[in-house]
Amino acid sequence: MINDRVIVPLDVPTLEEAIALLDLLPRVSFWKVGLELFVSAGPSILEILKEREKRIFLDLKFHDIPNTVAGACRSATKYGVDLLTLHATAGRKALSQAVEAISTGDKPPKLLAISLLTSINSRELAFDLKIPLELPEYALQMALLAQETGIDGAVCSPQEVSQLRQVCGSDFLLVCPGVRPTWAEAGDQRRVMTPVSAIKAGADYLVIGRPITTASNPVEAWEKVCQELAEV
Amino acid sequence: MINDRVIVPLDVPTLEEAIALLDLLPRVSFWKVGLELFVSAGPSILEILKEREKRIFLDLKFHDIPNTVAGACRSATKYGVDLLTLHATAGRKALSQAVEAISTGDKPPKLLAISLLTSINSRELAFDLKIPLELPEYALQMALLAQETGIDGAVCSPQEVSQLRQVCGSDFLLVCPGVRPTWAEAGDQRRVMTPVSAIKAGADYLVIGRPITTASNPVEAWEKVCQELAEV
Repeated sequence: MINDRVIVPLDVPTLEEAIALLDLLPRVSFWKVGLELFVSAGPSILEILKEREKRIFLDLKFHDIPNTVAGACRSATKYGVDLLTLHATAGRKALSQAVEAISTGDKPPKLLAISLLTSINSRELAFDLKIPLELPEYALQMALLAQETGIDGAVCSPQEVSQLRQVCGSDFLLVCPGVRPTWAEAGDQRRVMTPVSAIKAGADYLVIGRPITTASNPVEAWEKVCQELAEV
Repeated sequence: MINDRVIVPLDVPTLEEAIALLDLLPRVSFWKVGLELFVSAGPSILEILKEREKRIFLDLKFHDIPNTVAGACRSATKYGVDLLTLHATAGRKALSQAVEAISTGDKPPKLLAISLLTSINSRELAFDLKIPLELPEYALQMALLAQETGIDGAVCSPQEVSQLRQVCGSDFLLVCPGVRPTWAEAGDQRRVMTPVSAIKAGADYLVIGRPITTASNPVEAWEKVCQELAEV
């Protein structure tokens, strides 16, 4: 069934609200835990997800010196998470130490590089971050840097999927946030596409949050998304 | 006493090892919690530090879209941390939303921007991260970007302290990792200086880890560092 390619983020501030969302959407098999919830609740949310036999995308976007990234990856691997993010801009050494660090686990997570935050536009990339490349080119360069060091895949905006799929090949995992069904509004993701077009463009997983979790009827919204994807 | 300007990182993988270090060094008043320990233990370590009336530097280096950075800052503020890091490269909107997010707390943390990881060298900056600036210039630009958005200070390598102090003024908090007494070896920090020279160059706080925590006698190493700084 297509629904295990749709990851729902637990973008809520407390453990109680997260549990309420899990109870509300029992058929969702893959959940994302981000910084807000993890800083608030810590690994207890990971233990609850494991108890409920859910798959876990731990999206803390590690960006630190090599030693610390490796240590954080080891800590995350102990909780049996399935997907784990780190910034490509942490550098080659941090990326390769992360690959090494997770290999110690019996069921290591897949490592996903953050090439570029989907909330950064081309003006900010050039003027604030001093990077003289266009967004797609820069996202591609960071994804290639990650792939060269053995990272399993990348998180990218839907607009970058087809290019990355073409250049990085079929084994490279592509996970897309910023995906919105036609019936939902844009929020702070700048570069947005529909679920169907993102899967067609080559995405392996879609992260769909507010269109489901803040819908008047989240269960219905979830069913609607799965229905749309079932027809791909 | 000078020792509350020296922050000791709890760079250990488990809560038990962290508690053992706290017990070993009861006079240390300011502790840093990084990604490895936080991913492993979560906020329970923050609660223990608060119970022992210690000051807390929560160094998770947030680097995510604005909404998530703001949420993570709110979560951290609830635990009463004193210093909190986020990457300047998260962009202007994320930085200003972080400033807004912490203002909700009754004793908000000071926000510190990560300008550039101390483990990145100039070759990597240019060839891997595609940034055509020299290290000091880039670190300065990112610190200024952060200061413009209301961020309280920056983490920077000791080599960058005097320049940042001069350009960003006396109110801008400067916290330096990569500081090593003459009697300790370099580890994976590339740009290294002694405690005394870093304070003289204008640092407000020093993060001194391995020279203390992995010394044959950590208490003695701590006393030695404090002694050196008392003579500044």
